[in-house]
Amino acid sequence: MDEFGLIRQYFAAAPCAQATAGVALGIGDDCALLQLAAGEQLAISTDTLVAGVHFPDPCDAYLLGQRCLAVAASDLAAMGATPLGFTLALSLPAASPDWLQGFAAGLNKMAQDCALALIGGDTTRGPLSVTVTVFGRLPVGQALLRSGAQVGDLLCVGGSLGDAAGALPLVLGQRQVAAELAAPLLARYWSPQPQLALGQALRGKATAALDISDGLLADCGHIAKASAVALQIELERLPLSPALLALLDKPAAQHCALSGGDDYRLAFTLPAQHLPALQAAGWSLVRIGQVVAGRGVQLLDAQGETVQPRACGYQHFGNLSD
Amino acid sequence: MDEFGLIRQYFAAAPCAQATAGVALGIGDDCALLQLAAGEQLAISTDTLVAGVHFPDPCDAYLLGQRCLAVAASDLAAMGATPLGFTLALSLPAASPDWLQGFAAGLNKMAQDCALALIGGDTTRGPLSVTVTVFGRLPVGQALLRSGAQVGDLLCVGGSLGDAAGALPLVLGQRQVAAELAAPLLARYWSPQPQLALGQALRGKATAALDISDGLLADCGHIAKASAVALQIELERLPLSPALLALLDKPAAQHCALSGGDDYRLAFTLPAQHLPALQAAGWSLVRIGQVVAGRGVQLLDAQGETVQPRACGYQHFGNLSD
Repeated sequence: MDEFGLIRQYFAAAPCAQATAGVALGIGDDCALLQLAAGEQLAISTDTLVAGVHFPDPCDAYLLGQRCLAVAASDLAAMGATPLGFTLALSLPAASPDWLQGFAAGLNKMAQDCALALIGGDTTRGPLSVTVTVFGRLPVGQALLRSGAQVGDLLCVGGSLGDAAGALPLVLGQRQVAAELAAPLLARYWSPQPQLALGQALRGKATAALDISDGLLADCGHIAKASAVALQIELERLPLSPALLALLDKPAAQHCALSGGDDYRLAFTLPAQHLPALQAAGWSLVRIGQVVAGRGVQLLDAQGETVQPRACGYQHFGNLSD
Repeated sequence: MDEFGLIRQYFAAAPCAQATAGVALGIGDDCALLQLAAGEQLAISTDTLVAGVHFPDPCDAYLLGQRCLAVAASDLAAMGATPLGFTLALSLPAASPDWLQGFAAGLNKMAQDCALALIGGDTTRGPLSVTVTVFGRLPVGQALLRSGAQVGDLLCVGGSLGDAAGALPLVLGQRQVAAELAAPLLARYWSPQPQLALGQALRGKATAALDISDGLLADCGHIAKASAVALQIELERLPLSPALLALLDKPAAQHCALSGGDDYRLAFTLPAQHLPALQAAGWSLVRIGQVVAGRGVQLLDAQGETVQPRACGYQHFGNLSD
C-alpha cells in the first residue's frame, strides 16, 4: 500500500457510513450512494480551506480537522438540514503520520459531534488544502433560505458574536495573553460549533437564515438583498461574550462582532410570535434588530440614530481569503 | 464586487441548475437542494486535480476545465448513474480574466456534454487546484458496483486503451511529433469522454464495473478483490487505437494500455448472454478476457500462457499522484 493508501486508514474511525440512515453505500466504490425518504430533499454545500489563506501554516492538525468540518457543517445548520454525511478532498505535501493522526482525530471528533458520516473523498499530494462537501436531509419546502425575510420580523442571532475575530491576533501569535483569557476565544476560532439543532428548530418558523462567516454586517446584507428588505441592527443589542470583553474594550468588541467574520452563528429573521416559544424551549436566541422596508443594512445606536460602522481594528485572517 | 466575486460570474454560463430535473435550488444560498424521484438513489463522487501533480503547470485553461469535470463525471458513468449536477471548489493564485474565461468555457462545454448542472461551489485564493464533486441519479439497487463479478462472466472495456498514457510525453513536451499524429492522442488525454450513456445501458446487465483511471491492470485488480474472483486479460484482445500504434510499436502500446491510466473508459464484467444485444444496439464493447475462479489479475499471451506485465516504459504523470 502506498503512503496515500495509508492515509485513508486514518479516516476509517469516522462515524460508520453504512450504519447511517440515508447512506446506502459509503467509501470503496466509484461513488457513494445516498437514499432519502419520500418527501425529503438533499442539502449540499462545499467549502475549501487553504493553508496560509484560511488558516495559519503550520497549525495544530487536530484543530484544523475540527475546523474544516465545522465550517462546512455550519451551512447545513443555516438551511435547517439534518446532517447526513460528507466527502473529504485532502491535499497534503507529504504524509506525516503524526499530522495525519491528529487531523483525522479532530475531523472524526467533529463528525461525531455533528452526526456526519464520511462517505467518500480523494487524497492527493499537493499544497495543504482541505475541501469538505456536506450533505443533509430536509423535508421538501422547509429549507431556511435567505430570501424570505418580511418587514416586521425580528432579526436574531444564535449566540455571542466577534469571539473568533477577537481570537485572531492570538491565533496569529501577534498578541499574547494569559491562557485562561485566551482559551475560550481560541476555542471559538478553532472549534466553532455548527448550530445544527437550532437550525432544525427554526424550520417552519424563521423566514430567512444563514450562518455568519463573512461578518454580521456583510451577511445581513445577503439576507437584505435576497429578501428585498432592509435589516436594522441595534448596536447595544449585540451579544458580546465575557471572554471578548475581557480582551477588548467595548467599541473594539462591537466592531469584531459587526465585521469580524468566522462566527458560524446563525443569523435569522423571525416573526415575533415565534420568539417566546423558542426561548421557552431553551434556545439562546438574541434579538439584535428587525426587518424594515428598504434596502441594505442599517446600524442604530442606543438613541436609535443611524451610525456608520467603522472598520474592525483587528486583522482578520479572512481578509486574504474569500 | 471583489475579484473572486467576479470569478463566479464566469461560471454562470454552465447549464442552468434551476431548469435541471432534480435540482430544487442551485447557486446562491448556503446550500444547494436536490430532490430525487421516488425509488431513486443519489450517486456522489469527489476528485481533486492539483497543478504540477495531476496536470502540467502552466497548461491550457480550457483543456483543464474540460478535463477536471470529465474525470469526475467518469465515476458517475462507472456506477451507471444519470448525470445531475456538480459542485466546483477552485483555488487560484490570482484571478486572471483570460485564464478564467478559458477555464470556465472548457468546464461549461463538458458540463453541457455531460448534462451536469453547476449547483454550487467555493472559489478561494491559493495554489491552483480543482476539486469537483459530481451527483447522479440511479434507480435503487441498479448501481454498477465493483463487487458483483461472477466466474464465467466476460471482461469487457468500452473502447481503445492507452491513448492518454501514450499522449503523456507529448503533454509534457518530452516528445514532438507531427500535429496530425499528436492531435487524437492529446484529445484523449485532455478531453476524455465519460462513458455515461454506456454506463446507463449496462444497468441490470453488467455484474461489476468501474472507470479505468489507475490503469487496466490496477483497476481490474480492484474488481477482482471486491468480487473475490480472478480476472484474465488476453493481451492480443487489448483494443489499441490507430493513433497510438502510429506513435508506438505494439509492445509499447500494449504496456500503455495495461499500465498507463487516465483512460476513463469503462471496464466491466458481463454475463455472455448480454453481449450480442448490447453490440446490436451499437455499443462498441470490446471483450478483453473473462472472470475465472481465483484471486487477482492474470495476463495471457496469444498462446493462452500467463505472462508477467513489464513496467510501462513511458513516464506517467500520475506517478506523482494518487
